Amino acid sequence: MVLPKTCDCSTINGEYQVDHFSFAVQDTFNLRYLINDTWCKTVKNAPIFFYTGNEGRIELFAENTGFLWEIAPKFGALVIFAEHRYYGESLPYGNQSFANPRYLGYLTSQQALADYVELIGYLRSKEGFEFSPVIVFGGSYGGMLSAWMRIKYPHIVQGAIAASAPILQFTDIVECDAFARIATSDYYVSNPTCPQLIRKAWKTITEVTSNDEGKKWLSSNWKLCEPLKTEEDVQVLKDFLQEIYINMAMVNYPYETNFLAPLPANPINVFCQHLTNSSLTGKPLLSTLYRAINVYTNYTGKANCTFTKNTTPTLGDEGWDYQACTEMVMPMCTDGTNDMFEPATWNFDDYNNTCFKKYSVSSQPHLACQQYGCKNLDTVTNIHFSNGLLDPWTSGGVLRNLSSSATAIIIPDAAHHLDLRESNSNDSYDVILTRKFHQYSIKKWIAEYQRKF
Amino acid sequence: MVLPKTCDCSTINGEYQVDHFSFAVQDTFNLRYLINDTWCKTVKNAPIFFYTGNEGRIELFAENTGFLWEIAPKFGALVIFAEHRYYGESLPYGNQSFANPRYLGYLTSQQALADYVELIGYLRSKEGFEFSPVIVFGGSYGGMLSAWMRIKYPHIVQGAIAASAPILQFTDIVECDAFARIATSDYYVSNPTCPQLIRKAWKTITEVTSNDEGKKWLSSNWKLCEPLKTEEDVQVLKDFLQEIYINMAMVNYPYETNFLAPLPANPINVFCQHLTNSSLTGKPLLSTLYRAINVYTNYTGKANCTFTKNTTPTLGDEGWDYQACTEMVMPMCTDGTNDMFEPATWNFDDYNNTCFKKYSVSSQPHLACQQYGCKNLDTVTNIHFSNGLLDPWTSGGVLRNLSSSATAIIIPDAAHHLDLRESNSNDSYDVILTRKFHQYSIKKWIAEYQRKF
Repeated sequence: MVLPKTCDCSTINGEYQVDHFSFAVQDTFNLRYLINDTWCKTVKNAPIFFYTGNEGRIELFAENTGFLWEIAPKFGALVIFAEHRYYGESLPYGNQSFANPRYLGYLTSQQALADYVELIGYLRSKEGFEFSPVIVFGGSYGGMLSAWMRIKYPHIVQGAIAASAPILQFTDIVECDAFARIATSDYYVSNPTCPQLIRKAWKTITEVTSNDEGKKWLSSNWKLCEPLKTEEDVQVLKDFLQEIYINMAMVNYPYETNFLAPLPANPINVFCQHLTNSSLTGKPLLSTLYRAINVYTNYTGKANCTFTKNTTPTLGDEGWDYQACTEMVMPMCTDGTNDMFEPATWNFDDYNNTCFKKYSVSSQPHLACQQYGCKNLDTVTNIHFSNGLLDPWTSGGVLRNLSSSATAIIIPDAAHHLDLRESNSNDSYDVILTRKFHQYSIKKWIAEYQRKF
Repeated sequence: MVLPKTCDCSTINGEYQVDHFSFAVQDTFNLRYLINDTWCKTVKNAPIFFYTGNEGRIELFAENTGFLWEIAPKFGALVIFAEHRYYGESLPYGNQSFANPRYLGYLTSQQALADYVELIGYLRSKEGFEFSPVIVFGGSYGGMLSAWMRIKYPHIVQGAIAASAPILQFTDIVECDAFARIATSDYYVSNPTCPQLIRKAWKTITEVTSNDEGKKWLSSNWKLCEPLKTEEDVQVLKDFLQEIYINMAMVNYPYETNFLAPLPANPINVFCQHLTNSSLTGKPLLSTLYRAINVYTNYTGKANCTFTKNTTPTLGDEGWDYQACTEMVMPMCTDGTNDMFEPATWNFDDYNNTCFKKYSVSSQPHLACQQYGCKNLDTVTNIHFSNGLLDPWTSGGVLRNLSSSATAIIIPDAAHHLDLRESNSNDSYDVILTRKFHQYSIKKWIAEYQRKF
């Protein structure tokens, strides 16, 4: 059986309401989705495997969700990857979508879920699919969406594989420093000196760049695409560094990948191999750090300079920034002691002010928990919440069973939604087992549904 | 213990988002609610009994939900009656609320539920109420809302008493003629001649009013507030008649009430006592029918004329007409054979066209089932769906258990949400038992929740 390594799909646009919850705005838009019906052609009421697209072009997720492709033939499933509104080409107001708060205001998770509900309704309206069970899949924010699909629309969706879905990463629910502590521990287990040097480097960067000569030195030594000119530029550089450390923790996969960036197997190990000499200080520390960082920024060896604006060009950062400002307010903080980052407290008011300046909307820190629930989730059924202990997002994951069929799966040996990726000879036993358990429950959920008819 | 016969409450306004599901419109408005904290003052985490207001001034429901008032002291509950947006005084855009599709478009059940979620969040933010269990109550559309509150927000609401809630009265779910057949049977059991004469009268009205003399005769004989001039006026009169027959079936209570109109006990019996002579035809039939109708239109004896524009002045007909045109599309038809009404098929296109002309929006006949579920509701828990067999709305009710705790309660002897009314010596045993069962489950739901802490 030939498995598609990348998505071998048709691309279709469906017309949807921009606003599913009111009648004041009647605009419609084209939602894009990928469809593959190779394995369901002879099956009546074939299962529908539906990836609830998250913050990026849908192809990105189709290409990085090999697990779904591997099991679809076995289940004779129709495969759908639905693009999230305001990402990829699913722009409700075309190139004006981000131009105006009135246009951008319909970028919400609830509206996206309602798009998927419509799309599923359409798929089930086709002959032979009327009683098709629907299993939703998603990783990260996509995993939150698939969990929420089952939570909010259990009459439509029969089960959900919610991989690395931090549905609890909200105000008053989790500690804001947990995320940074997990990320730090990934570097620590690789080599305890590594996070120590990362931590030391923040101050070193500040000191070295405190004068023009130092800024010049770092710009040239790190081959920065834009030379450092102001203190602000230095802060931007630090933010980039922090993002890289976190991204590397997320995609710390046991084999070469190209999800957020082209990376070697176990990138944190490769990175930390450079950072073993705890006595390093000053410019030598920064020069060494630069070599380490190249693991992330220039694994291909083709980059001419370091730090382009966007560290994850495949993700829709513009849209996500808006979502993080409105409903996906996820408190994060660092203390520089229990983690390797520069200390930064979580200050909602500052956060909200910054957001308001950008988008003229107030952050709604309690909206997600109000709408979907963060506590009292014992009525939830038929969801796998899988979380890898290498993944910093596990900080907001569901780590205990919510009910007998809403199950927490802890994968000691996995980074961000590794279980959704295609099989690899380097997969550890716990990842393999998780995928087996996913299949077992999917079978069960499908059978449960079929028994009704 | 003194029970309030009418609502002995404080009236409070809370400020809420007009649009809870997007950020494009940031307008806010005042939602009104009634609150009574007489019985919860010394209780920590007292239960909150929350009536999910429906299509009318909230006082109407507070005055006709005696059951809640009777049991609140026993439970030491905080009592809340929340007004539905766009009804009573909870008008998001003041007296312009109905003037413009842009303003009116936020009149949706989902938005109303989100208002209630906000209000519950506010109540629980008060000291001593953080872990208060919330039980929602509602009758008719209010019952749909309370069921949907539990279905959509089980993490917020612990249980629902959904009385006479026709959550299945939607396209492709129930037969459109069931409603009329149940209404007819109410008249039939009173006296089989009664629905027969009602049926015969439609044609008689058409014939008698086919000329000016006849129109004059009927206008004067029936003391119509506005004399009949055109065929259209005749149709309006017929529509009124039909509405009265249906309303009387809904409020066919075993004692004198004043819910939709001032009425005697068992109004259909009183009405049908006039309609026993099956040989009546022509003007004598209409004169007799007029005497019968007076049971509904002039029970107080104070009306100077018959048929004012609004047969149910206490309900917000303007808002409900919009809701029925948009999301609450409930297919109804009559055949004049199995029911006592003039034959009328259900034609969605005609319905939609009429609605579009009025409101410039398209009817969404599948929206409610998509959003809340009409099939595959087996994950639903902690709801009582009570339906009286005298109530035509039972046609759209949940008449079988959805799960071990989402229970259908059939009350052979009750009209529209009689179980929500205060106790009366004329209540039949099955109504008394239903109220006991409600209390039993409320106790159970509260205990379930309290066990968590």
